[in-house]
Amino acid sequence: MKGNRVTMSGQTLSEKILSRAANKEVKAGEFVMANVDGAMIHDITGPLAVKGFYEIAGRDARVWDPTRIVLLFDHQVPADSLKAAENHIQLRKFAAEQDILNYDIFCGVCHQVMPEKGHVLPGNVILGTDSHTCTYGAFGAFATGVGSTDMASVFATGKLWFMVPKTLQIMIEGQLPSRVTSKDAVLRIIGDIGADGANYLACEFRGEAAERMSIPERMTVSNMAIEMGAKVGIFPADGTTKSYLEGRVQDREAIEAGFVKGDEDAAFSRREWNVSDLEPQIAMPHNVDNVLPISQVPQTRIDQVFLGSCTNGRFEDLQLASEMMKNEPLAKGVRMIVVPASRDEYMKCLRAGLVERFMEAGAMVESPCCGPCMGGSFGLLGAGERCLATSNRNFVGRQGSPQAFVYLSSPATAGASAITGYITDPREI
Amino acid sequence: MKGNRVTMSGQTLSEKILSRAANKEVKAGEFVMANVDGAMIHDITGPLAVKGFYEIAGRDARVWDPTRIVLLFDHQVPADSLKAAENHIQLRKFAAEQDILNYDIFCGVCHQVMPEKGHVLPGNVILGTDSHTCTYGAFGAFATGVGSTDMASVFATGKLWFMVPKTLQIMIEGQLPSRVTSKDAVLRIIGDIGADGANYLACEFRGEAAERMSIPERMTVSNMAIEMGAKVGIFPADGTTKSYLEGRVQDREAIEAGFVKGDEDAAFSRREWNVSDLEPQIAMPHNVDNVLPISQVPQTRIDQVFLGSCTNGRFEDLQLASEMMKNEPLAKGVRMIVVPASRDEYMKCLRAGLVERFMEAGAMVESPCCGPCMGGSFGLLGAGERCLATSNRNFVGRQGSPQAFVYLSSPATAGASAITGYITDPREI
Repeated sequence: MKGNRVTMSGQTLSEKILSRAANKEVKAGEFVMANVDGAMIHDITGPLAVKGFYEIAGRDARVWDPTRIVLLFDHQVPADSLKAAENHIQLRKFAAEQDILNYDIFCGVCHQVMPEKGHVLPGNVILGTDSHTCTYGAFGAFATGVGSTDMASVFATGKLWFMVPKTLQIMIEGQLPSRVTSKDAVLRIIGDIGADGANYLACEFRGEAAERMSIPERMTVSNMAIEMGAKVGIFPADGTTKSYLEGRVQDREAIEAGFVKGDEDAAFSRREWNVSDLEPQIAMPHNVDNVLPISQVPQTRIDQVFLGSCTNGRFEDLQLASEMMKNEPLAKGVRMIVVPASRDEYMKCLRAGLVERFMEAGAMVESPCCGPCMGGSFGLLGAGERCLATSNRNFVGRQGSPQAFVYLSSPATAGASAITGYITDPREI
Repeated sequence: MKGNRVTMSGQTLSEKILSRAANKEVKAGEFVMANVDGAMIHDITGPLAVKGFYEIAGRDARVWDPTRIVLLFDHQVPADSLKAAENHIQLRKFAAEQDILNYDIFCGVCHQVMPEKGHVLPGNVILGTDSHTCTYGAFGAFATGVGSTDMASVFATGKLWFMVPKTLQIMIEGQLPSRVTSKDAVLRIIGDIGADGANYLACEFRGEAAERMSIPERMTVSNMAIEMGAKVGIFPADGTTKSYLEGRVQDREAIEAGFVKGDEDAAFSRREWNVSDLEPQIAMPHNVDNVLPISQVPQTRIDQVFLGSCTNGRFEDLQLASEMMKNEPLAKGVRMIVVPASRDEYMKCLRAGLVERFMEAGAMVESPCCGPCMGGSFGLLGAGERCLATSNRNFVGRQGSPQAFVYLSSPATAGASAITGYITDPREI
């Protein structure tokens, strides 16, 4: 890690995006009213946004632009309670009334489905009523989570106020070793920066290792930006972005139009990590920034492995975990829950034989959804139990009992640990 | 349907089984204390049985015979609440302490796993703390559901009192037409007999069509015996039984030793159905005996299809439903939840391409468990919603809102309806 470097003119990537969205040149620290390019709600936070919208705008109101709003059901699918079932009914009704696209219970996690289905473009301002909306930063978008009442206002007006964030360039240099992943990199960064170390900053992921990352790897990193307090976590769009989005986005010209880069003489801070010697990392209970290199983690027996989530539920993640499991069965006493992040990812896993391999090993493979990540629906832990999860948060009580323990890792570490029964360095199996 | 016929001497199949279990010759109406051959508890009813056992027998007590007790987790898996997680922990501890076999969250529905893994033998007395324990009648066992406190006593003593039931022979004659299944047959029988029409009777399924039924088909029929109030629902063991159990049961001699047949001069009633012209049948809301031939069902739009459960969650069921779906997508607005009944059944489905076909159609395929059947875990319905289910009960509120409607059908009808969006005769697609 190196110290800060500050320059004094030009614009950062985020300033450029917000300037376009606000129709005027803006700088960090200014308050602006910005046009929103895309808005997303899901089945838990959506109902309050809908209620707020009708309260603000009136019972007969129309949303500002139905083509820019997307609904997704992912947190409680299939409905896990009467309340969830009623929420789903209400949101389906809203979607039908307002002619809004609704990805129902069978589609997958919002943050996977949104880019997969072409709802994310570089340079866009995208808001979602979910804290991990920052995932779309992987595509060069200025994307952030907002509250349901903020979203109600967006539905009515298409605009939202922002304080333009200062930028922190996070240089990820070097080359990730084998079986060490972008999840390990971002856990190390969060461990060093701290859970509030990037509060309201626009993090920009740059450097050799960042540029080499695939889209799934970038999504993991951007997804976790909120865990250090960042407003957004952006990878500047490049050829990798373009390759992923082509074929998904109808307006292909819009892809390159969003290829925004910050000026080198803009005002920003910079910190640097070199990942060439990085070990696998574990976020220990009960905070995401409580990160230890795996060599410093005491031997820890686990009861459950959760492989999935918007952080690490993609085909590449499941494939890596499966490789680490080497066709061996789960360790005695270990339960494993595998949840691909979307229907498309599920089908890729299925056709590559991964569903069969996980099931043969003794795991449960569930249809795409948020799964045990936030402990609402299934896979909850009892008192004293330990779960190794590829998801993004390990807060007290998040996956069940406040007396349970959640450890966060990469899919490689999750796979290796599933067959040994304790937290295991994937380089050592 | 023909009337009753009563004879006056000899013993019925059930009298013979209970005579062996009670070590004396018994007749219907007598109260006996019988030795239990097998006992099963699951994750919802198990904890109370365990608590009761220790209260009866003392904190340091050992169960009467750990090799005859089986634990299964199926109703709330993976744990869908903190309470479920704690129940699972408690039951795992009990299994470890008492050296009892525990099928954990990844195995499947108790009534599928029990025979599949060789825990059911013809002629056995098997008790389970679940009302559909009568399923094992498909293998010629005297199997019935008991309360958790009864089970506590069984754990302590290996015995339970019974009133020896009278026998009703249900003759299923003729030949089931194409796309009409054993589920349709048993729904028609329940519709005719009524939900309390066979109260505390030992139903024996006989006749040409019954004898031709495969084990999965028989399991569907025996499973539903409780829905007409029967104590047990038995298919006398035969070559079909033997073929299924060989390779699953270690003690192969015990299979044929349990081939018990009732005496023709025993005292029993008899009713007869001929299924050669049977239509698909639907149990309309909100009772299982509210059965209509499908031609009399008014056009009924559905919101959800549930394909699974101990009644109809086997490979053959999913295969039939899939055939009816003809590679077409789900009808617009229809959700479909598919849950194979066990890991073995899941793997058969997966390898036959059924998981892929259901997922491609837009369904959700979940890991083996009870699923939405009893509305506890997922797939709950909101007010006004309609579900067509292959499960066994459609009571008010069972699958969610008391204002929802559950219709019961065969897998063929479920598959056909999934692609049309309304309750559809599988012979007409």
